[in-house]
Amino acid sequence: MNIFEQRESEVRGYCRVYPVIFDTAVNARQTDVDGNEYIDFFAGAGVLNFGHNNEHMKNAMIEHLQSNGVTHSLDMHTKAKQTFMERFARIILEPRGMPHKMQFMGPTGTNAVEAALKIARRATGRKEVLAFSRGFHGMTLGSLACTSNSIFRNAAGVPLNHVSHAAFGCEKPCLGCDMGCGLDSLKALRARYLDSSSGLEAPAAFLIETIQAEGGVNVADRTWLKAARDLARELGAIFIVDDIQVGCGRTGSYFSFDGMDIDPDIVCLAKGVGGMGTPLAMNLVKPEIDALWKPGEHTGTFRGQGLSFVAGSEALAYFENDEFMDLVKQHASLMEKAIKPLEQQFKRLQVRGQGMIWGIDVGTGEPAKAIVNACFKDGLLVSACGSGGRVIKLIPPLTIPESDLKEGLDILLRNLKTVMEAQS
Amino acid sequence: MNIFEQRESEVRGYCRVYPVIFDTAVNARQTDVDGNEYIDFFAGAGVLNFGHNNEHMKNAMIEHLQSNGVTHSLDMHTKAKQTFMERFARIILEPRGMPHKMQFMGPTGTNAVEAALKIARRATGRKEVLAFSRGFHGMTLGSLACTSNSIFRNAAGVPLNHVSHAAFGCEKPCLGCDMGCGLDSLKALRARYLDSSSGLEAPAAFLIETIQAEGGVNVADRTWLKAARDLARELGAIFIVDDIQVGCGRTGSYFSFDGMDIDPDIVCLAKGVGGMGTPLAMNLVKPEIDALWKPGEHTGTFRGQGLSFVAGSEALAYFENDEFMDLVKQHASLMEKAIKPLEQQFKRLQVRGQGMIWGIDVGTGEPAKAIVNACFKDGLLVSACGSGGRVIKLIPPLTIPESDLKEGLDILLRNLKTVMEAQS
Amino acid sequence: MNIFEQRESEVRGYCRVYPVIFDTAVNARQTDVDGNEYIDFFAGAGVLNFGHNNEHMKNAMIEHLQSNGVTHSLDMHTKAKQTFMERFARIILEPRGMPHKMQFMGPTGTNAVEAALKIARRATGRKEVLAFSRGFHGMTLGSLACTSNSIFRNAAGVPLNHVSHAAFGCEKPCLGCDMGCGLDSLKALRARYLDSSSGLEAPAAFLIETIQAEGGVNVADRTWLKAARDLARELGAIFIVDDIQVGCGRTGSYFSFDGMDIDPDIVCLAKGVGGMGTPLAMNLVKPEIDALWKPGEHTGTFRGQGLSFVAGSEALAYFENDEFMDLVKQHASLMEKAIKPLEQQFKRLQVRGQGMIWGIDVGTGEPAKAIVNACFKDGLLVSACGSGGRVIKLIPPLTIPESDLKEGLDILLRNLKTVMEAQS
Amino acid sequence: MNIFEQRESEVRGYCRVYPVIFDTAVNARQTDVDGNEYIDFFAGAGVLNFGHNNEHMKNAMIEHLQSNGVTHSLDMHTKAKQTFMERFARIILEPRGMPHKMQFMGPTGTNAVEAALKIARRATGRKEVLAFSRGFHGMTLGSLACTSNSIFRNAAGVPLNHVSHAAFGCEKPCLGCDMGCGLDSLKALRARYLDSSSGLEAPAAFLIETIQAEGGVNVADRTWLKAARDLARELGAIFIVDDIQVGCGRTGSYFSFDGMDIDPDIVCLAKGVGGMGTPLAMNLVKPEIDALWKPGEHTGTFRGQGLSFVAGSEALAYFENDEFMDLVKQHASLMEKAIKPLEQQFKRLQVRGQGMIWGIDVGTGEPAKAIVNACFKDGLLVSACGSGGRVIKLIPPLTIPESDLKEGLDILLRNLKTVMEAQS
Repeated sequence: MNIFEQRESEVRGYCRVYPVIFDTAVNARQTDVDGNEYIDFFAGAGVLNFGHNNEHMKNAMIEHLQSNGVTHSLDMHTKAKQTFMERFARIILEPRGMPHKMQFMGPTGTNAVEAALKIARRATGRKEVLAFSRGFHGMTLGSLACTSNSIFRNAAGVPLNHVSHAAFGCEKPCLGCDMGCGLDSLKALRARYLDSSSGLEAPAAFLIETIQAEGGVNVADRTWLKAARDLARELGAIFIVDDIQVGCGRTGSYFSFDGMDIDPDIVCLAKGVGGMGTPLAMNLVKPEIDALWKPGEHTGTFRGQGLSFVAGSEALAYFENDEFMDLVKQHASLMEKAIKPLEQQFKRLQVRGQGMIWGIDVGTGEPAKAIVNACFKDGLLVSACGSGGRVIKLIPPLTIPESDLKEGLDILLRNLKTVMEAQS
Repeated sequence: MNIFEQRESEVRGYCRVYPVIFDTAVNARQTDVDGNEYIDFFAGAGVLNFGHNNEHMKNAMIEHLQSNGVTHSLDMHTKAKQTFMERFARIILEPRGMPHKMQFMGPTGTNAVEAALKIARRATGRKEVLAFSRGFHGMTLGSLACTSNSIFRNAAGVPLNHVSHAAFGCEKPCLGCDMGCGLDSLKALRARYLDSSSGLEAPAAFLIETIQAEGGVNVADRTWLKAARDLARELGAIFIVDDIQVGCGRTGSYFSFDGMDIDPDIVCLAKGVGGMGTPLAMNLVKPEIDALWKPGEHTGTFRGQGLSFVAGSEALAYFENDEFMDLVKQHASLMEKAIKPLEQQFKRLQVRGQGMIWGIDVGTGEPAKAIVNACFKDGLLVSACGSGGRVIKLIPPLTIPESDLKEGLDILLRNLKTVMEAQS
Repeated sequence: MNIFEQRESEVRGYCRVYPVIFDTAVNARQTDVDGNEYIDFFAGAGVLNFGHNNEHMKNAMIEHLQSNGVTHSLDMHTKAKQTFMERFARIILEPRGMPHKMQFMGPTGTNAVEAALKIARRATGRKEVLAFSRGFHGMTLGSLACTSNSIFRNAAGVPLNHVSHAAFGCEKPCLGCDMGCGLDSLKALRARYLDSSSGLEAPAAFLIETIQAEGGVNVADRTWLKAARDLARELGAIFIVDDIQVGCGRTGSYFSFDGMDIDPDIVCLAKGVGGMGTPLAMNLVKPEIDALWKPGEHTGTFRGQGLSFVAGSEALAYFENDEFMDLVKQHASLMEKAIKPLEQQFKRLQVRGQGMIWGIDVGTGEPAKAIVNACFKDGLLVSACGSGGRVIKLIPPLTIPESDLKEGLDILLRNLKTVMEAQS
Repeated sequence: MNIFEQRESEVRGYCRVYPVIFDTAVNARQTDVDGNEYIDFFAGAGVLNFGHNNEHMKNAMIEHLQSNGVTHSLDMHTKAKQTFMERFARIILEPRGMPHKMQFMGPTGTNAVEAALKIARRATGRKEVLAFSRGFHGMTLGSLACTSNSIFRNAAGVPLNHVSHAAFGCEKPCLGCDMGCGLDSLKALRARYLDSSSGLEAPAAFLIETIQAEGGVNVADRTWLKAARDLARELGAIFIVDDIQVGCGRTGSYFSFDGMDIDPDIVCLAKGVGGMGTPLAMNLVKPEIDALWKPGEHTGTFRGQGLSFVAGSEALAYFENDEFMDLVKQHASLMEKAIKPLEQQFKRLQVRGQGMIWGIDVGTGEPAKAIVNACFKDGLLVSACGSGGRVIKLIPPLTIPESDLKEGLDILLRNLKTVMEAQS
């Protein structure tokens, strides 16, 4: 029995899907201890937008260590943090006219969401938060109440209150979905919020993903998203975009909502913001809301991550690099062209996505699992998401070489077809 | 206006106490961008037990990066994780006969506590958790309900239910404390739990710190701690030790409870476990409890932190180094001898602590703040904790050179006396 | 200042609408201390289905008192209770093939609802209850969580959890209502309940009124009601009909749901069940659900109300009296014919109802209030209900003489027209 | 099978203890359908302070019915209510200088408590209520959260939040009680409330019984009660006395707290206030608190109970009758003298009480049950209360003839001795 079987918790998951020991990794390839190579269409669950051991980041981190740069600083000022913040303001916020303040907290997505909920509740004096079916926001009790998946919710051990869920307004409804995802449903929700005898409480916040990644790569319809934003404004609710998985470039632009004119009050970022997989989380909060924080009221030991600031600063450089952003668009197009035709080939299959995040909904969890396993055997890492794990999610590093992207797609398509044909 | 004033959230705290920009740091010294040096008695809030840029850790991290080791892996197996787990089992668990499983989650203390609460609630089918006055356990809603400080609690924006608080059994009661901290109070609590008409619900867990660090360096009386453990057992409650701040060697042994025969069901670790300030958190869970997890039920993106495993493995080596552990004892003794006499010199002052964590309770927040500020001006970083910030907390790196330790204590004592004498 | 102004709570309400002191009352007429008479279209909020001081009931109560019958017995057996139960079983339950057990509790509607929720939650092991917008179920915290009106909810002082609200399926939507009240909305709700990632929890119960009386006389569409029942069954939820205001004959049959084939698991009764205004409440609970109660687990001092059993037994006799039931139908028809044409006369007016409960929705609260006040001056008691008090509710005693009914309707129509014409 | 076995809910309780059908009752005697007589030391759970079918009340009720007095009026003004309120103000409030307003609500104790909690929470803007171990306050969710008995609490089906429980300050601790019931415990509670890091929230209210009747006839120590009142004042909490079971004369004065100088902000009354067992409940609320109610915010169909006002007015006359009040004192003394010596005779027995409420604590539920059963066979109705039903509670009507009182005590003592001697 190896150490993992002897001593690691039963809660472990991905290692059961990929039962090898990884040793090294570069850009979109991981290598196990036996020397087997795997193309990575998973990117650390959307963290490694610029690949494993990204050369620029790695070198910057090594240099930071060699020069004894501060690695851990809570919310003290450091030079590394200063550089990151200045760069973020200049490259990301200023060009968009975003006046938002930057709040650092415990460096995980769920910490960011919890902080956002706190300040939204304070800003409104309300408790109830509106979240959306199939949304994912984290595992700690405040975020978990917003997360919709019952597997996670059932582990809470206490009731998850002060959050209600409405149908998410998908660009196209999932296969066989009847949950009322369109504008009509939002209109009815509005009427209920405005009626003093509906039993609904005025919301403190709308917490929304523009693309529900964990939830099955459900892309929000832009009209619906705008209407949701308008409704939040009308109700005096804080509009929070959880851009943790699809922000930081995943859709081909820094924010997933760029160009949508939805002007979020709070944006939650984590995952990719720290660059190379060392943790970092950050909320962008409009100044008039942020001003309601009292100093030290929301803390967290690991708020000041030197290496994440250093690598994250390198990540920001990509968003000034037009050539690179064009490459991302080409990759995105290549992916779409490769998988979109599957919808014609398989009746009970749906392809959804945008930029470099794509989901192939194969209807149920079983074939999805078979495809994931077959791909792994052929040297491709993909994972399943969505209700019952029925959606194959493709999120390769944005920096993936075209050859790896093509090879990965080939492996995927080959195995998907085999499984799907065996199904029918 | 600098970038911090322009763009950082109003919630920022420590940077207001130490209003400089830190650039580099080595062991127990930090240097700001103007070249000023500071002796560090804060150690990143108890994270940097082996100092800033610890040579062994730094080199191992650089080597890991240079060899393209996996930096981020969720809960996949990696070589770095394997090494860490094997070493932890061999050096820490096996010698103590601890059969516990190791669970990795989001790499912050609060994530660890939330995971512990979930599995404790599942294991017992109960909801109510018993936490203790002056305890600190984190900022996310599940942990925050256990945290006692009203400043943090008031930021929640929703009621914090399913947790009740009892008086903590201090070795010596805080100055003027009348909260009922002794064994009598525990005996009464027992009687109430055993009476079916007390209104108290059977607890899922006791969540306890052996030394409440944030809460003011309150050291639990050993007899009381054992009695609390016995009561938990009697009531069928899971006994959880939150060793996040005082574990990993702070008290002169790996766990703060070593030698106390309290056999916790779950131990929460974070802060120091990742070695050099890159985040890592880990729960140690008895196998029969851990077995209740279903795979993937509690997740977190940043569960697999390559650099933290690498640096954390180096940290473990210190616990095989008897010479080093002796040095820690000498440091501890030096600290105690330096500050203990203050109790004789100042009536309204109390010294509490153990190993290399000491608190000087000066009665109220004002003089404490004055002392912290004066020390900072003289090149010493200390912070205040406890109700109203009335306790000066001393937690230098275990690796601090004796000269730095002495110099730091000199600065502290000098300024403390000046402030305290001005007070009276 | 009279005693009411001096000493009665500011919470008092109806006495502000009808600012006189009532002295005596017979059937559908009340007389104040100055000898002024009022026709009663309010019937004690739906309690006095058989009129004030109903001759049969009054005599039976006097006889009970004169013979020293037990007036108060908790849940001991008494002769009066035996008679009531035997009669209820024979006249109401057996002809309908209803196997339900009879549970007596604190004699108010809210006590009945609280008891129903408890046993439904036990029977399912679930917490969440589905209630409906515009529903009214009582003032104590468990019932209040199901009540939808924000005026009542805002008085709770604590969050009202464990209940969610869906749109109610009206026969015809209220004026300008856009809340999604039809079958489509129920279908979407079903899809959300069946999706494991919707964020909705499986419900313990559906709590439903067939006609929302306080909520504005909203009559459920029969197809919708049946579909709601089917959905409850499919989800394993207990189907509870709150028949407190519209049961006991109000709709022309004993239960409001007679003939609808919805077979409720639990029926809550109160108001009219005690006959002449002395309190009584009773739940009818299917035996397999009722069997889950442990003796004495839900109590209440005033469970055994001798005078209410005596008067309530008399009330039951009416349901064996075909002639009387025909009279009720004639009254119902007379009411409908009188007020239905108002819909043609006034654009922004809607008439809703069934049997002897009718609501005239005049769109907003102001004209409704003016009508109520004008009617009172002319000697007719009516009240306003619904969101903002915009619906004039007509619930005369079933036993009202035809002449009183006509006179009352005349007063109502005259004043309504004056007010509505002044509005436009 | 009789109708009760066929059709009554399994929740029924007292009828299992007294398995006969009662027919008539006069003062302190009940007669079953077979003509067997029982002396009543239970008085309808403390409702019938002036006996079954009290002649004055009965005649007044009959007259009210015969003259067609209003029986049911919600919160409209009626002559019967006017008389009751005027008399209550004159006889009870004015002599005590109590400025309180009278609030009527649903006519059960739990409705009164729920209303009191609502207005206390509004008045303070706080949520948490402090209740006491072994207290009983009702069955609906708001009151039930304050009730301490786990049998009742476990039936809730949802968590009972926003209430914490402290040890009750008994005059003498129950047998073997170790719950920390004295002033020390209250002092520690105070210290915890005043410490901002105790984890306790500032309370909206203290909800307290001066004698916990259901809880086992635990009589509060006067010094402790006063200290509790002082602490409530110091913390800005509303001080609510639940006088539902021991008010209305039970202790020999109208309020149980007369002469104690505790000046409650709110007093909850029910049970005896309606005189002869027809329901009535009333809160007395200080005007400045009552002024926070908005009209109609807390309602209840059965707020206006004509027969209860009529009988309740008769009850008030007794409190102007010095001769009667002397008689009550003699009864009280007779009871005390009869049972007090039992403490000397049986080691594991404790006698507690005051006025005409006495409890004999026999240590566990079994002997108590045996005594209750044996007494019933001998024609005496007594019931058991307290944790596990270990306390025989004696609450005969205040109007009981001395001969009945003596006969009842004889039966009790005889059977108690037999059972207790068999035990040892």
